Amino acid sequence: MINFRSYNPTKIIFGKDTYKEIGGILGEYGKKKVLMVYGGRSLKANGVYDQVVHSLEASGILFFELGGVKPNPRLSLVYEGIEIAKREQIDMVLAVGGGSVIDTAKAIAAGYYYEGDVWELYITEAQPEKVLDVGVILTIPAAGSESSDGSVITNEETRMKCSCCTDLFFPKFAVLDPQLCYTLPDSQISAGGADILAHVMERYFVPDDHHDFSDRMCEAAMVSLIENLPKVLKNKQDYEAWCEVMWIGNIAHNGLLGRGKRDDWGSHNIEHQLSAYYDIAHGAGLAIIFPAWMKYVWKEKPEMMEQYALRVWKVCPEGKTREEVILEGISRTEEFYHSIGLKTRLSEVGIDDRDFEKMAEKAVFMGPLGNFKKLYKEDVMEIYRLAL
Amino acid sequence: MINFRSYNPTKIIFGKDTYKEIGGILGEYGKKKVLMVYGGRSLKANGVYDQVVHSLEASGILFFELGGVKPNPRLSLVYEGIEIAKREQIDMVLAVGGGSVIDTAKAIAAGYYYEGDVWELYITEAQPEKVLDVGVILTIPAAGSESSDGSVITNEETRMKCSCCTDLFFPKFAVLDPQLCYTLPDSQISAGGADILAHVMERYFVPDDHHDFSDRMCEAAMVSLIENLPKVLKNKQDYEAWCEVMWIGNIAHNGLLGRGKRDDWGSHNIEHQLSAYYDIAHGAGLAIIFPAWMKYVWKEKPEMMEQYALRVWKVCPEGKTREEVILEGISRTEEFYHSIGLKTRLSEVGIDDRDFEKMAEKAVFMGPLGNFKKLYKEDVMEIYRLAL
Repeated sequence: MINFRSYNPTKIIFGKDTYKEIGGILGEYGKKKVLMVYGGRSLKANGVYDQVVHSLEASGILFFELGGVKPNPRLSLVYEGIEIAKREQIDMVLAVGGGSVIDTAKAIAAGYYYEGDVWELYITEAQPEKVLDVGVILTIPAAGSESSDGSVITNEETRMKCSCCTDLFFPKFAVLDPQLCYTLPDSQISAGGADILAHVMERYFVPDDHHDFSDRMCEAAMVSLIENLPKVLKNKQDYEAWCEVMWIGNIAHNGLLGRGKRDDWGSHNIEHQLSAYYDIAHGAGLAIIFPAWMKYVWKEKPEMMEQYALRVWKVCPEGKTREEVILEGISRTEEFYHSIGLKTRLSEVGIDDRDFEKMAEKAVFMGPLGNFKKLYKEDVMEIYRLAL
Repeated sequence: MINFRSYNPTKIIFGKDTYKEIGGILGEYGKKKVLMVYGGRSLKANGVYDQVVHSLEASGILFFELGGVKPNPRLSLVYEGIEIAKREQIDMVLAVGGGSVIDTAKAIAAGYYYEGDVWELYITEAQPEKVLDVGVILTIPAAGSESSDGSVITNEETRMKCSCCTDLFFPKFAVLDPQLCYTLPDSQISAGGADILAHVMERYFVPDDHHDFSDRMCEAAMVSLIENLPKVLKNKQDYEAWCEVMWIGNIAHNGLLGRGKRDDWGSHNIEHQLSAYYDIAHGAGLAIIFPAWMKYVWKEKPEMMEQYALRVWKVCPEGKTREEVILEGISRTEEFYHSIGLKTRLSEVGIDDRDFEKMAEKAVFMGPLGNFKKLYKEDVMEIYRLAL
């Protein structure tokens, strides 16, 4: 194990009807004036918006609104939020939504105090020194941003999707009520599941040795996700299965599973360019990129890919070479994506090779990607090609 | 899953030579004057004391000392610490040791501000409103107190061993350097391992349903502990195996593994009376109590005990009844304790039934114990008898 620091101060408030107590929760933190950030239609259609507003009003919390957050959240909306936050002197940004909403809220929270252009925090080494408190009501288990230190924003003008990480980005609290997932469309459930799985895999496929307990925790998350995700797709009101998916989604990205080793993030960064160019959902993009990445890199550390095949997919090793076991593990991964309704090839979603070079260039803009295998522009292009 | 809140703000600073940076770490937290609490001989014999003092001095940290903490830490020493802390107006209690040292430090931290007798916090519903910051350098992976919200103190006059839990007891940071374990005697390694295993089992054997991911994480901890503990007993300088044991020991008791269910703690409380009466090491006592507890309660939820036998001990179920599988799981547990040098019967450590009634009475002093099965005085006595 390599030396590490482990820190995550976000309080998770988990369970049935917890989001209906949001006014009281804000009271516990002494908050009185919040900017509520959210997406749009679905929140109002499923009644969550009304319940939240009702609880805020009942607790005497003054709130301002910024709706309209879209997947691959835009920098322009962040600027808008910063303006409202400054004008109204709010004391917390309350994100009601999934990763895009939370990442927008974090960017607003940083921009509130940052003197320069908030985008600098995403494309340079500059770090925020102070940010507004962020609170979360999670409606989509996927990005894990509800208790992560990261935020990913897309600059729609330059077509760049970049991230900023800081301990200051850990939300104060995150409310996780599995009932809020009941109305998610299939496509969001699947893409969210692929994102969760990817968060575990990015921390599982590492170049270092000696991480037995960590491996087993990652496998616990993967096996349980693979078991429970199909259940919620089959019955969207399966509360207990949603509990598992939502809790796994949280643990998958709160930092725990990556301690003591250098996690990868190659696939994530390769995908970010894909969804910046084509506006494909991040999770859907990951289902395409990850198998291609596996095929490209497995020889770097075949014992790790073999363990994955054996323990997660229970591939029977008898009469097979190590390579065959590994390739079966990869194809089982692809089959799983298909079984939950995702595509695993760029050609299946109508993407050809015309932008590969530009995307690869942007992907490695800050330096080579990944740790399992260091990836340069040519490697990234090859992975895009393998994903065709 | 039942509703829960998950919160643990302790920063873990893990790895080789981390404890040598203690002065700098205290500086990060703005601390200038600390009370250093520790045990005694071993810390000075193995050179850790000198290294810590050197780092404190090099960083200009003023420090006072309270040595002499013993297993089953005494209330009288807590009073002594509170007196020093108040007299010297310290700004942090720095625990350098294992669970007993850390629990003493927490009690001192609470007593510093509490207006009444600090013991009230352990035997009544009274809760501290403010406590001094606590920092930790961990030298024995066992109690998990380095990032837990609890403290257990023994009142040597009344022979009562009681606990106090509050969010305020989470240490600010805990430094975990596996090298500090190299000089532990076998008996402490074994007892510590049994304590870690018990922390997982108390959270694994629960009365509730639907906790698949949590079960698998518990199993990850148990399987990996069972694999790595014998390694460090065989080679005390096996750094990587110590990393696993120390990291498992931390996760086992930081709260994570018990989320969404009502954990048990029956065996812990039954053992506390045992070590209060006989001054047996807590972990050594747990190795005796846990198998007896399992034998007494397994029928409450046989499917859980069966899963334990199958997944943790890989008991082969072919041709066996469920009861046989379960009993094999329990006897494999006993065998494991034996293999690491622990006794599993009271008679083996020279304890007879003369104090069973008094101990059982004190064990249920605050009400019946446990959740997997509610245990009253008669049940506790029966478990002591099964452990004979």
